[in-house]
Amino acid sequence: MILLTPGPVQTAPETRAAMAQDIAPWDNDFRAVYARIRERVLALAGATAPEHACLPLQGAGHFIVEAAIRSLVPAGGEIIVPMNGAYAERVMLLARGAGRVAHAWPVPDTRGVTAGDVEAAFAAHPGASHFATVYSETGAGIVNRPEVIGPVLRRLGKRLILDAVSAFGALPFSMAEHPECDAMVFTSNKCIEGLPGIAFSVVRTEALEQGRAGSWSLDLWEILNIARKSGWGSFRFTPPVQALAAFAVALDLFEAEGGQPARLARYRENMRILSEGMTRLGFRPYLDQAEQGPIILTLHQPPGFDLQGFVDALKARGVLISNFYTTDTPTIRIGCIGAVTPAEMTRAVAAMGAALTTMRAAA
Amino acid sequence: MILLTPGPVQTAPETRAAMAQDIAPWDNDFRAVYARIRERVLALAGATAPEHACLPLQGAGHFIVEAAIRSLVPAGGEIIVPMNGAYAERVMLLARGAGRVAHAWPVPDTRGVTAGDVEAAFAAHPGASHFATVYSETGAGIVNRPEVIGPVLRRLGKRLILDAVSAFGALPFSMAEHPECDAMVFTSNKCIEGLPGIAFSVVRTEALEQGRAGSWSLDLWEILNIARKSGWGSFRFTPPVQALAAFAVALDLFEAEGGQPARLARYRENMRILSEGMTRLGFRPYLDQAEQGPIILTLHQPPGFDLQGFVDALKARGVLISNFYTTDTPTIRIGCIGAVTPAEMTRAVAAMGAALTTMRAAA
Repeated sequence: MILLTPGPVQTAPETRAAMAQDIAPWDNDFRAVYARIRERVLALAGATAPEHACLPLQGAGHFIVEAAIRSLVPAGGEIIVPMNGAYAERVMLLARGAGRVAHAWPVPDTRGVTAGDVEAAFAAHPGASHFATVYSETGAGIVNRPEVIGPVLRRLGKRLILDAVSAFGALPFSMAEHPECDAMVFTSNKCIEGLPGIAFSVVRTEALEQGRAGSWSLDLWEILNIARKSGWGSFRFTPPVQALAAFAVALDLFEAEGGQPARLARYRENMRILSEGMTRLGFRPYLDQAEQGPIILTLHQPPGFDLQGFVDALKARGVLISNFYTTDTPTIRIGCIGAVTPAEMTRAVAAMGAALTTMRAAA
Repeated sequence: MILLTPGPVQTAPETRAAMAQDIAPWDNDFRAVYARIRERVLALAGATAPEHACLPLQGAGHFIVEAAIRSLVPAGGEIIVPMNGAYAERVMLLARGAGRVAHAWPVPDTRGVTAGDVEAAFAAHPGASHFATVYSETGAGIVNRPEVIGPVLRRLGKRLILDAVSAFGALPFSMAEHPECDAMVFTSNKCIEGLPGIAFSVVRTEALEQGRAGSWSLDLWEILNIARKSGWGSFRFTPPVQALAAFAVALDLFEAEGGQPARLARYRENMRILSEGMTRLGFRPYLDQAEQGPIILTLHQPPGFDLQGFVDALKARGVLISNFYTTDTPTIRIGCIGAVTPAEMTRAVAAMGAALTTMRAAA
């Protein structure tokens, strides 16, 4: 079975093999592995200690987004969220649920945020301190570019919270080049190609303040404090230690492949094969070519399309895609990420053609 | 290597083998596995739908404790926490961090809560609605007995939040016998002998109220709502799906062993072997026999004892125990839980004797 999903993604056999072991998180051998993971993540994010820190959190990506907002924006503080996708909607809900004032700034889900959007949003809400945006929207597949957003924020003296959950490792990002960024967050199970269970933040340590989060579980300052007191191999609360061991293997493979540029190149090639193949099969992309990111291809469902039937027919051929969509109109969502080679993507496209033929014959 | 820890515990080979696979959480085959896990947990907890629901949450046990408090007690509401261990301290911090008024009720860490403690605590704090206690304290190893606490709460019309993280599966508990219980919480990686990554709550659904939690991530009402709308196989946010697949295997093994009574009997036998063996080796237990639970044995460190040295010498002999303690005075903490047989515990005690001999020779 090949997973072509927005994540949890297909992983390499070596990576998932590392899951099948019992590990005591506080064991000194594992503490060294964990401390090294944090150093490696910092380096990949163009960040440097002690100005920055890698602060992981157990659980889903949503938890680290909420933790970042709570830990950086005071209760009652204002942030702006450009609403061009399903995950932007969730950033807004997380912020509002935490008692922060989140201004939803309208942007269509068919394009990335422009410099003009950022200007206009802060002109309308000058009291907002932070701009929280999703780097790669796994809803439609658009990309909100830090290199477009960052310069405006720097000029205005505003701060960035970047939800890079489905981007980090594939799309380039460097904290050094983005001094306006207070926190960049991502999870183990996307473009680094690990297994789910742990989320990471890379934060500007100066921006964290004791007692601000309003949740002991979701407090990045507390996580930083424990690391400073007990060492960078120490964990606050029981971690999903197998997912961390697998993440260390995933980082090895990531580096062996050639890091972010090589990974992006493979994903782009997967996207080209998939996009051309699906167009040949008669599907129409949800996005204009210029807005299409390399992570997710979203296609319009033809009238009367049976999505679950297509997913089932494809699964019988060894390819698994999502059986749901997050756009307003019915779409099909296929991932180009994970441990999938262009040769496998070519076979997957052939399987999609065969699945459609079977469905048409049965109809 | 055998882990003799408070958790994550030693698991069976079949259980951890289930970790090494890629799974799409929304796949219909997996949805059935997940829905069945929730049914099985409900049955094990003596709970029945729709009066009760099994509501899992990604992450560590602390997250589900915070989620239960947030979702059951309104902001500014009062709860009482009897302070007889390190995990009680954390319950209090989680509650206070969430803006609830947590009254710390002093109880020594060498005994369980009595009926008199509960009476006196509510007499002092009549405005408190909930009593939040830790069933098995992994600090010292004492047990706070629901059968002692429950009747008082029922008479007073007060509610129970039971942190059964290191108890559930070994110590008996039934929601049916404890109508005063609003939520019982536990994690995958303790007495059910799964891998870490997911926590479970069994809640009285009527006690949950929309909009109360003050955190979208940690809102049990939202998790219930998603389950009701999208089915009990659906997950809110990406789950640690491998830990869930392994948990299903762990439940199979749990049932095959004979369920809670058989598991408790094995742990008690492990405790007997360990306790007698360590006494023979000259160690003095932290607790009186009457207060000693079956989960964790805590021993006083002899004067000048080198805990990390002992842990290292023991690890070289294939046995891993904790290298830290949570009591006020220096102790050694050894777990009797996990996929460990009495024969393995006997060998572990022999390894401890050998490790001590080596340490004395080197000193």
